[in-house]
Amino acid sequence: MKPYFFDTYAVATSEFGYSMGIDAKEALERSRESIASKLDANSEELIFTSGSTESSNTALKGVAMTFKEKKGKHVVVSKIEDFPVLNTAKALERQGFSVTYLDVDAEGFVDLEGLKNAITKETVLVSLQQGNQEIGTVQDLKAISEICEEKEVILHTDATHSFTRLPLNVEELPVDLITMSAHTIHGPRGIGALYIRKDTPITKLMDGGFQEFNLRAGVENIPSAVGFAKAVELVTEEENRRLKAMRDRVIDKALSEIPDVTLNGSWEKRLPQNANLTFHYVEGESVTLHMDMRGFAVSTGSACFSRSLEASHVIRGIGGDHERAHGSVRFTFGRYNQIGDADAAIEAMSEIVARLREISPLARK
Amino acid sequence: MKPYFFDTYAVATSEFGYSMGIDAKEALERSRESIASKLDANSEELIFTSGSTESSNTALKGVAMTFKEKKGKHVVVSKIEDFPVLNTAKALERQGFSVTYLDVDAEGFVDLEGLKNAITKETVLVSLQQGNQEIGTVQDLKAISEICEEKEVILHTDATHSFTRLPLNVEELPVDLITMSAHTIHGPRGIGALYIRKDTPITKLMDGGFQEFNLRAGVENIPSAVGFAKAVELVTEEENRRLKAMRDRVIDKALSEIPDVTLNGSWEKRLPQNANLTFHYVEGESVTLHMDMRGFAVSTGSACFSRSLEASHVIRGIGGDHERAHGSVRFTFGRYNQIGDADAAIEAMSEIVARLREISPLARK
Repeated sequence: MKPYFFDTYAVATSEFGYSMGIDAKEALERSRESIASKLDANSEELIFTSGSTESSNTALKGVAMTFKEKKGKHVVVSKIEDFPVLNTAKALERQGFSVTYLDVDAEGFVDLEGLKNAITKETVLVSLQQGNQEIGTVQDLKAISEICEEKEVILHTDATHSFTRLPLNVEELPVDLITMSAHTIHGPRGIGALYIRKDTPITKLMDGGFQEFNLRAGVENIPSAVGFAKAVELVTEEENRRLKAMRDRVIDKALSEIPDVTLNGSWEKRLPQNANLTFHYVEGESVTLHMDMRGFAVSTGSACFSRSLEASHVIRGIGGDHERAHGSVRFTFGRYNQIGDADAAIEAMSEIVARLREISPLARK
Repeated sequence: MKPYFFDTYAVATSEFGYSMGIDAKEALERSRESIASKLDANSEELIFTSGSTESSNTALKGVAMTFKEKKGKHVVVSKIEDFPVLNTAKALERQGFSVTYLDVDAEGFVDLEGLKNAITKETVLVSLQQGNQEIGTVQDLKAISEICEEKEVILHTDATHSFTRLPLNVEELPVDLITMSAHTIHGPRGIGALYIRKDTPITKLMDGGFQEFNLRAGVENIPSAVGFAKAVELVTEEENRRLKAMRDRVIDKALSEIPDVTLNGSWEKRLPQNANLTFHYVEGESVTLHMDMRGFAVSTGSACFSRSLEASHVIRGIGGDHERAHGSVRFTFGRYNQIGDADAAIEAMSEIVARLREISPLARK
């Protein structure tokens, strides 16, 4: 990113501009091509955004606004989508759209029959994520996209947590819109992308200049686009296998060595970097604080911790109660973790959970 | 910015998070305070965005959407606003709003009587820039804000090109919303801010998480926020005086040493970093290319150069014809320019213009 901060720092310009702007523009287009190729997409089908929140807002609002007068005002999402999709759906409701929030089963899978039944002649968009942000459940995107294709409904998938971690190929799957993020794969904050299949009708969220094929206004963030492309390039299959091994070690040890633990989500169809476990009779916040003191950054779907002041909608979506949400702890693995970190995390968790249970009123049976 | 890319890289969290997230959050809030203080605003009145395009979209759409059912559907802007304001106004028209596009005089000043007359009981927002992006004209924001205050209409000002370059104080001026950008003052791309006066009713543009006082969703871009605050801190009054001296040198020499030159905009009430001159009988694109070969990056409001394929709406807004727009050249000065650069630029321009006029069919009288 550094050369584009300090040397080739010009605003990207078209062919009649000054040469530093042309060099900057070439770096932008190389980055676009590199990221698009990971999806087997054409580079004209990929726009840069300020992150996955903007990508999902653009996908949902952009399609809804295009169709509201023409086809209908109905959108389908699942109950466990991440906030950018879920709260954009709620914003569309306030603008007169109707939204179906699909139930998921105990492991977080969307019911495919339910999806088929939810789509009506009024439906303009289905938005279902590839991998869940909290419990890691990976949906059957092939089956979902085939249903949407057959029903002739546009499909958006939020791949914020799955892009580069799981296969996703727009030649093979009839997905129309894909949300991607850089910082979830060690890239910079403040940049994301949206794949828009050719001829997908979409209205701009951000009006102004004519950048990004006239689909997203704003001076291009070239250093970050270059950083995003580099982040994509650095993810390897070997790395994904390493993450999966750490994930499996944590889940396996937690279930076998610590009493009263529940795995949230599916083990088999799961993001490679994610483990989410409920340690019953303890509070997620307390675990987080104790783990932090030992140098581990973990998170919880507990109520007080989240800024929404509600227990995780994902844990409740899979049928968990507040107690299960309160005791849930999410471990996310990255490039700089080693398998020994997984062992150390579980060793720490084992001690912390035992101590917390000693003093927990919930555990006094 | 580097420590927040590489060391304190965590997502900002609330008080129950892991400690790296808390450190990151503190850096974010320090940056917010520092930028807000430049306006004499409270830090709770400033949100970070992905840039000035998003800030202006949020201001215009956010206010319009809040009021459309309640008060009315009328918005006032000027004809020479930058694209984020102008094209957002056009987008609002497509959604059923009516927009008054105020005329400006030959130097680019909004007619204050025209503004008074344009505001009706249906008007929900006035959006007028502080300093113009092309011709540098600085509006009388004091008079404008007093008119809006008296008429009880919300006022947004696009200060993308004027923030830190000109005084702007929300204690002194009753402005409700202010768009700011980092990259226009040597800060990073992909970050901007929006000042929102307390209790100004506004609807979120970007739905999702609860960041930025629940006014702008998306994981916070902390490295860039820190860079933005640093960029604001580095601008000094001495620097602004230096820019003004370079600007005045270019204008003065161009008008006195090169025949058939017109200054676009006002000389007196003008952004310190901006000079915009029309060199009659030459094409702006040709000038740009020749200047680039000599190492100068200048821009033009000519047709082919802009991605809109139309001659500058600003030059046309001040009554200039296509010929005047075609020959317009904008010089923007920055921290790393010296007064000698201004002399060298005019020397180069003088030679280039003379040569181009020799071969120009326009100049053969």
